[in-house]
Amino acid sequence: MRTEGIGIGDAVFPVEPWQIREPALDPDRLGQSESVLALANGHIGLRGNLDEGEPHVIPGTYLNSYYEQRPLPYPEGGYGYPEQGQTVVNVTDGKLIRLMVDDEPFHVAHGTLRAHERVLDLRAGVLRRSVDWESPAGRRVRIRSSRLVSFTHRTVAAVDYEVEAVGHEVRITVQSGLVANEKQPQASSDPRVAAALDRPLVAVSRDTEQHGAVLLHRTRASGLLMAAGMDHAIEAPGDYDEETDVRGDWARTTVVTVLRPGERLRVTKFLGYAWSSSRSPQALRDQAAGALTGARYAGWDGLAAAQREYLDDFWDAADVEIDGDPVLQQSVRFGLFHVLQAGARAERRAIGAKGLTGPGYDGHAFWDTEGFVLPLLTYVAPHAAADVLRWRHSILDQARQRARTLGLEGAAFPWRTIHGEECSAYWPAGTAALHLNAVIARAVERYREVTGDDALEGDCGLEILVETARLWVSHGHHDATGVWHVDGVTGPDEYSAVADDNVFTNLMAARNLRAAADACTRRPEAAARLGVRPDEPRAWRAAAGAVHVPYDERLGVHEQSAGFTRYAPWDFAGEHPGEPLMLHAPYFQLYRRQVIKQADLVLAMHWCPEEFTPEQAARNVDYYERITVRDSSLSACTQSVLCAEVGHLELAHDYASEAALVDLRDLHANTRDGLHLASLAGAWSAVVEGFGGLRERGSVLTLAPRLPGGITGLRFRLRHSGVRLLVEADHETVRVTLRDGTDARLPVVLYGEEAEVTADAPVERPVVPLEPLLPPPVQPPGYAPQRAAPPAAS
Amino acid sequence: MRTEGIGIGDAVFPVEPWQIREPALDPDRLGQSESVLALANGHIGLRGNLDEGEPHVIPGTYLNSYYEQRPLPYPEGGYGYPEQGQTVVNVTDGKLIRLMVDDEPFHVAHGTLRAHERVLDLRAGVLRRSVDWESPAGRRVRIRSSRLVSFTHRTVAAVDYEVEAVGHEVRITVQSGLVANEKQPQASSDPRVAAALDRPLVAVSRDTEQHGAVLLHRTRASGLLMAAGMDHAIEAPGDYDEETDVRGDWARTTVVTVLRPGERLRVTKFLGYAWSSSRSPQALRDQAAGALTGARYAGWDGLAAAQREYLDDFWDAADVEIDGDPVLQQSVRFGLFHVLQAGARAERRAIGAKGLTGPGYDGHAFWDTEGFVLPLLTYVAPHAAADVLRWRHSILDQARQRARTLGLEGAAFPWRTIHGEECSAYWPAGTAALHLNAVIARAVERYREVTGDDALEGDCGLEILVETARLWVSHGHHDATGVWHVDGVTGPDEYSAVADDNVFTNLMAARNLRAAADACTRRPEAAARLGVRPDEPRAWRAAAGAVHVPYDERLGVHEQSAGFTRYAPWDFAGEHPGEPLMLHAPYFQLYRRQVIKQADLVLAMHWCPEEFTPEQAARNVDYYERITVRDSSLSACTQSVLCAEVGHLELAHDYASEAALVDLRDLHANTRDGLHLASLAGAWSAVVEGFGGLRERGSVLTLAPRLPGGITGLRFRLRHSGVRLLVEADHETVRVTLRDGTDARLPVVLYGEEAEVTADAPVERPVVPLEPLLPPPVQPPGYAPQRAAPPAAS
Repeated sequence: MRTEGIGIGDAVFPVEPWQIREPALDPDRLGQSESVLALANGHIGLRGNLDEGEPHVIPGTYLNSYYEQRPLPYPEGGYGYPEQGQTVVNVTDGKLIRLMVDDEPFHVAHGTLRAHERVLDLRAGVLRRSVDWESPAGRRVRIRSSRLVSFTHRTVAAVDYEVEAVGHEVRITVQSGLVANEKQPQASSDPRVAAALDRPLVAVSRDTEQHGAVLLHRTRASGLLMAAGMDHAIEAPGDYDEETDVRGDWARTTVVTVLRPGERLRVTKFLGYAWSSSRSPQALRDQAAGALTGARYAGWDGLAAAQREYLDDFWDAADVEIDGDPVLQQSVRFGLFHVLQAGARAERRAIGAKGLTGPGYDGHAFWDTEGFVLPLLTYVAPHAAADVLRWRHSILDQARQRARTLGLEGAAFPWRTIHGEECSAYWPAGTAALHLNAVIARAVERYREVTGDDALEGDCGLEILVETARLWVSHGHHDATGVWHVDGVTGPDEYSAVADDNVFTNLMAARNLRAAADACTRRPEAAARLGVRPDEPRAWRAAAGAVHVPYDERLGVHEQSAGFTRYAPWDFAGEHPGEPLMLHAPYFQLYRRQVIKQADLVLAMHWCPEEFTPEQAARNVDYYERITVRDSSLSACTQSVLCAEVGHLELAHDYASEAALVDLRDLHANTRDGLHLASLAGAWSAVVEGFGGLRERGSVLTLAPRLPGGITGLRFRLRHSGVRLLVEADHETVRVTLRDGTDARLPVVLYGEEAEVTADAPVERPVVPLEPLLPPPVQPPGYAPQRAAPPAAS
Repeated sequence: MRTEGIGIGDAVFPVEPWQIREPALDPDRLGQSESVLALANGHIGLRGNLDEGEPHVIPGTYLNSYYEQRPLPYPEGGYGYPEQGQTVVNVTDGKLIRLMVDDEPFHVAHGTLRAHERVLDLRAGVLRRSVDWESPAGRRVRIRSSRLVSFTHRTVAAVDYEVEAVGHEVRITVQSGLVANEKQPQASSDPRVAAALDRPLVAVSRDTEQHGAVLLHRTRASGLLMAAGMDHAIEAPGDYDEETDVRGDWARTTVVTVLRPGERLRVTKFLGYAWSSSRSPQALRDQAAGALTGARYAGWDGLAAAQREYLDDFWDAADVEIDGDPVLQQSVRFGLFHVLQAGARAERRAIGAKGLTGPGYDGHAFWDTEGFVLPLLTYVAPHAAADVLRWRHSILDQARQRARTLGLEGAAFPWRTIHGEECSAYWPAGTAALHLNAVIARAVERYREVTGDDALEGDCGLEILVETARLWVSHGHHDATGVWHVDGVTGPDEYSAVADDNVFTNLMAARNLRAAADACTRRPEAAARLGVRPDEPRAWRAAAGAVHVPYDERLGVHEQSAGFTRYAPWDFAGEHPGEPLMLHAPYFQLYRRQVIKQADLVLAMHWCPEEFTPEQAARNVDYYERITVRDSSLSACTQSVLCAEVGHLELAHDYASEAALVDLRDLHANTRDGLHLASLAGAWSAVVEGFGGLRERGSVLTLAPRLPGGITGLRFRLRHSGVRLLVEADHETVRVTLRDGTDARLPVVLYGEEAEVTADAPVERPVVPLEPLLPPPVQPPGYAPQRAAPPAAS
């Protein structure tokens, strides 16, 4: 990834440890701030649109897994091509609070905007805004609003809106709205697709409540029902009028009053959302109304206090403290916060690649979730990780059907989906990326090993492991000499496709097969209930034991796939700096050359470290660094971890920063479409697995902290085996402390040496430095990462 | 290709040596007969629709390269994907002659059809029809019509229509029409595509002529102008009325008379067509009117006589006589006739895969033309072969542009096109099939070697050779050991794609490179004018000399592509007998298994015979026969040639029959969309190159006739080095006779022995039998070819 001339400057969001502050409104950065300042709880997502709705780049209110179907048109189709796509829908917008000052609508681009600040408070879980505005007629008001999406009340969001007259008496009109079918940016040049997504919501019913309204809609093609309700609490210094008007696609509660200078009108707006594919309109209407009643009962202060408490608990067991690099500090917390927002209350729904922050990738979930987001959630919010795996289990029927379509056994999970059906319309970079299934299986295995919670395996993990193992043995084959191959698949690197014996895929598949066999041994009765024949685990182990791992003896490196290191080099002297290669080169060229979009062989080393010697790791990093362009946001974090592992700590620091800053600096120039959750989660991996050296070897926590010069101290919190830990490291010492249980004992491996942490006795060891075997590698011309913050003065 | 339960029974078109006769109208075979009985001259094509227009399956009137643009929609696009498709247009239909008998319109499904016969006369070049019909009111008529598309008048077609009263006096109304924008079967489920192709013709102007009319139209998006004119000569026994009515989209000349029993009304209809992308409406109107004048001057009898004369000349130097197998005899002549019809007057326009017989494949030209049709045309109608190569030269600019888009040098010809731009919307089976360029280069080389005509190389051949050679060296690369590879390409077999070092591609590319270097040596000044640097031919020869040809030492066979013979086998016990695998299996499965749609490595042996020893050829045939399913019509002919070469003559006979009968028996169940020209031409190759053993080794004609048991004698005619030859063979003797020139001398190689034929002295040799090295191979279960006619009793 080249970063020339794009993104967000450092001044847009100043470097502050616990908040993302936007000191002024930049009309050219509106789309990015809508994503960066988004609020969500995993069920409801509100983009950081302005209260008054305009100007906007993408208005966005999302309900997890509420989607519309649309046709996938192919000029040349093929068997097994998905014919229906799924696209996240901008549901009924309840964020809207419009303001009129005397006769003038408040708009940031009209009149005089004397001050405008927004703050996303990572500890309070609230987006606060303060405005000082003078109307074209010279009437001045101050506006303070706060917005939250409740972690504790899953179906509730709220806005606390206060307007104060300054200098003159003014007539204030607040119009609080629900609006369905807001006009969206054009999603596609295909008129059928555009038609499907233009006004996707069909009005079902509407009701006026005491201080608000409930609107019911249904998606035209997917037939999903939703209810959006609003209710209000009003505080005014004197008389005010309130009325509510409701139509099919909108509702509006209007409050009118006159404020003298210094007086304030406060309107607290409560929002309740519900959706279902099966329940009745009446049931949904009742659910939304019930949510509103609960929210009103708690009040703004109650909701805000519960929000704070929820986050205090989260940060207590999840925070990462980075001394010496305040930029990385802020951005890693930003990432942790948004990953929590994406998954906290998803509860058996998918976590999309963008969470609920924007319409990018149609709102689809990819392997990103299990591959990059779940490692973090498993250590800091394991209930959310478990929920994702339960979601995967819930779509097993669709995955089995997909495997049948592909002529395979077991289950083939969709490359991209909302509801479970495959929605990828380019099979070489979709269906062929079979590794996804092994990544899901690995997440199942990791959850059990890290949390110590065996129950999930019984509920759903075993079935996922078995069905994915069946997939692998039906797809792979033993050659005439017995070696087991996986042919014609696409690994993580999307600048290669449909290759044979991709090392990442093969190693992960082998791991999948062994994990499934082990799980069947642990749970023979459950396995029998799933119809596992005795010969199946034997076949799985046989395949795993014979897996082919291509290695180039001449170069002394692993081949990303069979034959890869023999391919022609790529000419990196391209003519379009800063833009992904795929925008200017056909797959036909990219696929047959040694150019890599994202870590692939290097990711194999991250997730299957036991398969590589330190010497191989060093040479592989050196080789693949020189041909990797990071046109995917799923690369920098992995490169950071492996650079740290082989001793290139400064380079690792650069990559960690790049992963963490992906959205705060808009490094991929598409933050407006939503945040890059996998990269944000990957930043945590870069710090904790890279600098902290955390690895999973079975259920034993393995650590090997080594810090780059720019980081003077690192403290991170984890949950492992049901207890909370604190790991503290600087350049001399590492200490692991157990924070729960009086008699808990946790084995750890520190720099390869076994130890045991107890509640009474932290383990403390001197840092074991690592001399890199090779000098730091260079990247392709123009593709070096930006330098991280310079080392702090010692 | 499995042939169970599909196709056309033997009785539909009885086995007759010089005609295709349809003794009765079969409503269920209407679409097929529309293609089989199509008439064309390479410029105009008329499907075998009934004169009265209805019933029809696909009404079709085509002008070579007259097309409409349409969007190519991609659900996930990519750089370099073509955005505009091109589709052949059903132009203004001039075939229409409707008849009313008293008040009843003649329709084959109403009243009583006492007799209905159509005959495509392969020597006369005329489609004749005779009908005996009784109206629902009991009025009986006999109709005789003849239709031709003139070989000698390129822009002219004509219908001679005669109706006779039988038994009663009847009022006869003949309505002869021009109709634009006939309703077509839905071309696509995509509404944009359907919209582009629904009523593609916009009326420009209309004119009434003395006995007819001229209509001008323009295509909406591609902006091509066309004129269609009709004129009539009328012979009636008594008074008749004639009037012509004309509107924007239709014109109608009506003739009314009363016939007593035995009296006849004859209406001869002349059609003139013209189209242009650049000329004015007036110029086109004049051209069409001029064509009509010329046609009227010649009259039906003059046109028919010239047609016969043209075909007599053709057959004299092209006929193939096959003793002992009348089915193959008929079908090979049928193929020769249709290939002539496709190319005779194409004159620097493309020859589409279906010729001008139907809308299949959108009317596109593929590698079929140079690969399968040109070998035949080069030997029997070399002027038509030259015209195709001039067409290729005319689209070099588009091919150069395409190469630039792909990041390559030289020219990359389109996988499928009408006008020269790439129209393939699935790049792994389009753009990646780079071999097309070498096939075109081979056709250039073959034309020069076989005809002895050097001029074409100077006009256009050299530039094609140079630009394709540049393409190859920019795409291929030398590895660290100097070996030259061509990676990431798709060979002929479309059940494999984007593979490395496809043997066919590599050998053909090497041949292309050497041919280009040789041509530059022959024409140094012309090469210099094309900017060929001295180092370029050196680089071409170096690449060709170092080309990699994957060979599996363990199995003793060539690998179709690197690694192919290591792939898993295909499970041929499929559930959909008779249907192509690709309709029931995803590419994802097909590509990574040892299953072959069409001859690929076997085709390499056909076209590059010098690269394989007889032992390798025998083993390769044996290996690849067992995994080839012939889901493409481009396979049986090649398998026939190679089976003959390695001594499996009976199997070769079966495959030759399959290739030849592809449309007369509708073996691929899609003859209704148009004929399979490559397979029809391939049938000639199967007989002449297979049983005749004809091969090209430089410019020396090489023959080695060996006949299967079912063929007692074979005589074929060729043009070579400017003279006509006759080759006659039976099971004992082969004789080669020179038919031109008193002092002509032609070297030939017969069974590997050099000889010389002169006008005075035919060469006669005993047949040299060949003992096959291996027993005949078996095909995958269900995929054996149907047996050819049984051996004639001796």
